[in-house]
Amino acid sequence: MDIVIYLFEGITALDAVGPYEVLTRLPGANVRFVGPERGSARTDNGALALVCDAGRDEIERADILLMPGGFGTRRLEGDEELLEWVRRIDRTTTTTMSVCTGAMVLAAAGLLEGREATTHWVSLERLAEYGAVPTERRVVTSGKYITAAGVSAGIDMALEFAARTAGDELAMTLQLGIEYDPAPPFDCGSPRKAPPEIAESIRARFRARS
Amino acid sequence: MDIVIYLFEGITALDAVGPYEVLTRLPGANVRFVGPERGSARTDNGALALVCDAGRDEIERADILLMPGGFGTRRLEGDEELLEWVRRIDRTTTTTMSVCTGAMVLAAAGLLEGREATTHWVSLERLAEYGAVPTERRVVTSGKYITAAGVSAGIDMALEFAARTAGDELAMTLQLGIEYDPAPPFDCGSPRKAPPEIAESIRARFRARS
Repeated sequence: MDIVIYLFEGITALDAVGPYEVLTRLPGANVRFVGPERGSARTDNGALALVCDAGRDEIERADILLMPGGFGTRRLEGDEELLEWVRRIDRTTTTTMSVCTGAMVLAAAGLLEGREATTHWVSLERLAEYGAVPTERRVVTSGKYITAAGVSAGIDMALEFAARTAGDELAMTLQLGIEYDPAPPFDCGSPRKAPPEIAESIRARFRARS
Repeated sequence: MDIVIYLFEGITALDAVGPYEVLTRLPGANVRFVGPERGSARTDNGALALVCDAGRDEIERADILLMPGGFGTRRLEGDEELLEWVRRIDRTTTTTMSVCTGAMVLAAAGLLEGREATTHWVSLERLAEYGAVPTERRVVTSGKYITAAGVSAGIDMALEFAARTAGDELAMTLQLGIEYDPAPPFDCGSPRKAPPEIAESIRARFRARS
C-alpha cells in the first residue's frame, strides 16, 4: 500500500506527522514523504524542516494520497502544476485525504466539487468557493475522499481509516501504541466550544497571514 | 525563551512534533531542533526524516529542553557523551521535559532520581531501574521536570505547560488554533482501558525491538 504524504513550504508539521504515525503502521504500508523536489520543506513558523525523500515528478501513482495543511496551502491553491499533479495522482488512488487546509488544495484541484468536506474551522466557508459542501464534522468521508478538520484532527482521521480498512482490533492496537487517551486541559478545541473572543483572535491572525 | 528539542536516529516523530506545535507558539519562543550533529534524524520506522538545524555541540544552554522518545532511546540510555550533554544543558534550563521513552534518557542521565515520572506505558516499570518513581498519570510534574506518557501525550503536556507559564487564555487559543477537540474512535488509549490481549501484543512487539 503506497502512501504519499505531500510536503511543501509553509506546512503545519502536525498535519502530516499525526496521521503518519498511524498510517505507517498499517499492514503493508509504504509511506513516502514527497515534496516539489527532493530536499526539505520548512514549516509555517520556520522552526522545523521535514525531509522530502522524493520529488513529486518521481511519483506516478499512490494508493493513498495525503495533503496536509498550513499557511503554505494558500499559495498551492494557485499552483497549477501542483494541482495537475494532485489530479493525476488522485486518478490512481483508492483514498485521497487531507488534514486542515490541505482540503483547500484538493478543492482547488476540483476534487471536492459537490462533496461534503471539512478543513480548519477558520477556512471552512472558503471551501464553498470551490464547490465543496462545508461540513462541521471532525472527519468527513465522501466516496474515496476523507477530509479532517484542523491540525490535530488528522490523528482521529487516520485511526478511523485504520479501523475501516484493517479492522477495529488493529486500529485499537495502533491507538494504544501511541497512547492516544487524550486529556486536553480545556474543552475549547472547536469554535462551538471556545469563548467567542478567543475564536475571533484566531480569525484575525489567520486573516493577517493569508 | 530558547527551546531545544533533541532529535536522534530512531525517534518517534509525533513525540517531538506534537509539543512543538504548541511550544513554538508561546510568546518569545525560539525553537531549535538539535541533533548529534547537523543533518537529519530518521524515525524509528524509517519513513520520515527531520532536519537537525544544529548539532548539540553548538548548544550551550536552553530555557526548555525537550527529549522525545522512540525505539532509538534504548541506545541513548548508554550514550555517555549524550547523557553528559543532557546534564550540562539541564543545569541551564528552567524546565526539562520528555515525551514517551524520552524519560528513559533523562532518567539514565540521573535527572529523575527520587522523582515521580512517566513514560510510554510499556516502559513504565523500567523507570524505577534509574531511581525514578513510575507514575501512571498522563503528564507528571516534579519540580522543573515534566514527563509525558506515550507519543500523543506530548500535546497535552505542552498545553498544560502553556497554561501554567503563559496563562489559560493563551493556552486555550493554542488549543483552538490546532483544533484539538480529540475524538478517538475507541476508548482504548491507555492500558487500563484497552483489552488485555491488545496490550500484550504491543508489549511483545516492544520486547522484540529493544
